[in-house]
Amino acid sequence: MSSPPSTEAGQGIPIGVALLGSTGSIGRQAIDVLAANPRFRVVALAAGRNGELLAEQARALHPAAVALGDRADPAFAAALPAGVTLEAGDDALIRLATRPDVDIVVIGTGGMVSLRPVLAALAAGKIVATANKETLVAGGHLVMPLARAQAAGRAAKDPRDPLASPLGWLRPIDSEHSAIWQCLVGEDLARIDRLILTASGGPFLDLPANEFAAITAEQALRHPTWHMGSKITIDSATLANKGLEVVEAHWLYDVDYEAIDVVIHPQSIVHSAVRFSDGSLKAQLGTPDMRLPIQYALTHPERASRPAAAAPDLVEIGRLDFRAPDEARFPALRIAREAGRIGPWATAALIAADDVAVERFLAGEVEFPGIPRMLEAAVTRFGGQTGPPPNVDDLVALDLEVRAWLPTTAMGAAR
Amino acid sequence: MSSPPSTEAGQGIPIGVALLGSTGSIGRQAIDVLAANPRFRVVALAAGRNGELLAEQARALHPAAVALGDRADPAFAAALPAGVTLEAGDDALIRLATRPDVDIVVIGTGGMVSLRPVLAALAAGKIVATANKETLVAGGHLVMPLARAQAAGRAAKDPRDPLASPLGWLRPIDSEHSAIWQCLVGEDLARIDRLILTASGGPFLDLPANEFAAITAEQALRHPTWHMGSKITIDSATLANKGLEVVEAHWLYDVDYEAIDVVIHPQSIVHSAVRFSDGSLKAQLGTPDMRLPIQYALTHPERASRPAAAAPDLVEIGRLDFRAPDEARFPALRIAREAGRIGPWATAALIAADDVAVERFLAGEVEFPGIPRMLEAAVTRFGGQTGPPPNVDDLVALDLEVRAWLPTTAMGAAR
Repeated sequence: MSSPPSTEAGQGIPIGVALLGSTGSIGRQAIDVLAANPRFRVVALAAGRNGELLAEQARALHPAAVALGDRADPAFAAALPAGVTLEAGDDALIRLATRPDVDIVVIGTGGMVSLRPVLAALAAGKIVATANKETLVAGGHLVMPLARAQAAGRAAKDPRDPLASPLGWLRPIDSEHSAIWQCLVGEDLARIDRLILTASGGPFLDLPANEFAAITAEQALRHPTWHMGSKITIDSATLANKGLEVVEAHWLYDVDYEAIDVVIHPQSIVHSAVRFSDGSLKAQLGTPDMRLPIQYALTHPERASRPAAAAPDLVEIGRLDFRAPDEARFPALRIAREAGRIGPWATAALIAADDVAVERFLAGEVEFPGIPRMLEAAVTRFGGQTGPPPNVDDLVALDLEVRAWLPTTAMGAAR
Repeated sequence: MSSPPSTEAGQGIPIGVALLGSTGSIGRQAIDVLAANPRFRVVALAAGRNGELLAEQARALHPAAVALGDRADPAFAAALPAGVTLEAGDDALIRLATRPDVDIVVIGTGGMVSLRPVLAALAAGKIVATANKETLVAGGHLVMPLARAQAAGRAAKDPRDPLASPLGWLRPIDSEHSAIWQCLVGEDLARIDRLILTASGGPFLDLPANEFAAITAEQALRHPTWHMGSKITIDSATLANKGLEVVEAHWLYDVDYEAIDVVIHPQSIVHSAVRFSDGSLKAQLGTPDMRLPIQYALTHPERASRPAAAAPDLVEIGRLDFRAPDEARFPALRIAREAGRIGPWATAALIAADDVAVERFLAGEVEFPGIPRMLEAAVTRFGGQTGPPPNVDDLVALDLEVRAWLPTTAMGAAR
């Protein structure tokens, strides 16, 4: 793209969007937002397993190309409308993300599957809007230099170009990071004093520690404020989610771990805040609805003329509470912060272990307090690797290694 | 100035500041801020009455010129250090504000005295940072076109120049308007959906209406969160202050009265907020200390590297409350909004009447509920003038007319 795209209807050529992970919670909400904003054209869709929904999305949106996992599925191919290219094979997502008609790649997938496409997209000069935590928690040291290089190219021409910031290229969809990003618009990132990530605290905010072992999956899936996928809902209950966001914030905003605070805010209205060097704080507020940060990631540096979800009413809400997190009952927060300080091997191990731990908790095979124990075991076992930071092959191999190791080794720690 | 001044030490030439109203609450705090920021040089000081303090400030800061009221005072002249020019006469403030070595004029005066200097300074290409409410409540229709013209000159060269916004030229010092301004940095003003001005609610937030007549000046001067001059403290207690700020917000941000909300927020931490068209809210938070917005008005578009006062700690604060204002007990809010809708004659009458009403309340000559009655009487009497909006001569004449009319006419209404 030669200039930042304008997102209002009737202005210039359409903005081409590739959506990876279109059938998950983020993907479906992204489609809601894209369908309501006529300036966008969905040119590529990809999903991992849900071929039925992906085919339905393809029939509604008429993308140029789609991909479903890495399998050949004749029934899925037959359900596609005419004229849609079906990409397959290991590089299918990379081909979708780097198509010439793609301007923005939206990442709604979980796991490591999108790391290579993200790197390829950034290298190809595409904007990446990501809700995927592995992108930064495992790959921050690989992804951010690419975003910075694109930004530096813009800054050389015009330092006030919104794409002269790495945040213009790697755009966070997480509500917390979107909040910080919105607070930083027009500000000098060197003047950040602290980042304040808010956390709802989840359903067990006030549960005594001695009742944690009896927590069921059903209880943990009842999030008080957000409606999200099951993985992130459990991560919210353990605060592992907030720990991963601390690592993401470190990479996105180039801020030391010591300057990133987590504050419990049960109402989930203040999505996060920034404290600046001059003593001023800015906070972004919104209803807990992912369509809002998805829309912002798509329209930045502009704002859409209509809300993707109702705005909050401070008088109706009445009261906003803040308190310190309890790291004794929620050790995942401390473990994630420690992993961040150790480095990319540790954070990559952390996020792989968390995926396994949550899966096993949901299957009833691990108790709730076993989740942070599995995280700590993985960080201890895999975090201390010396030598250069992991490249993308190392990260994919480490991910598999952690997953293979945890079930047999860390189960004891979880009991 | 050929480019926005940089405010950090060691960068380029000093920024020349003229401070009008240097001995009042805002003026003294502005001097604190200026003295702590070595990039600024105070080149002119003016005060209305306190010659002793003004001479002391002149001895500490060595400005090029000073002015004291419009009187000749030999004792004051004798107390000045050598080399300080003493300006006198009707145009003294205008001469100070338009000196070639002045880049920014800071207005800390009350009343109409600074309106002519503000207009002259803007016309001469000076930046104006103002805590004076008359500037916009009476003179918004005169002041804003000048600020817009300066901004348009910059925008023609570079639309992303921070001085391409009228807010770069007419900078609010009020904490509420500074908050909104900070939330708007980097944002498109056309995407403002609503402005949310917060109000502490003052000391009588929960006092029953039937006890309002017994309120003493001493009680009204005890503001729960802010330490300010007596006029603005009484205005906070009646909510007239917030009403005047609604009018200021209308002019500063070019927003309809219907889109400006007032929300009671007793903790005075959220200084105000902006709701955008896409459903996102941004709020600015800070400790209630005027040195923070004074510093921001001076350093914009940069932020100082050090806070002018400690930043708030959300965990320590714990809780932020919001509720709707009660316009039955605090009618000044409704009256100010109505005056704003009527136009500049009405708002100019309103602010002149408020000055008299507060003075008479403090003197024990008018009861607390008499203040809004005097405001309403003045708006009714003087607001309906037809013909063109008032020019600066009209405004000065109207101010005197309202002051002459109120003591004899509106006293009855105040009982």
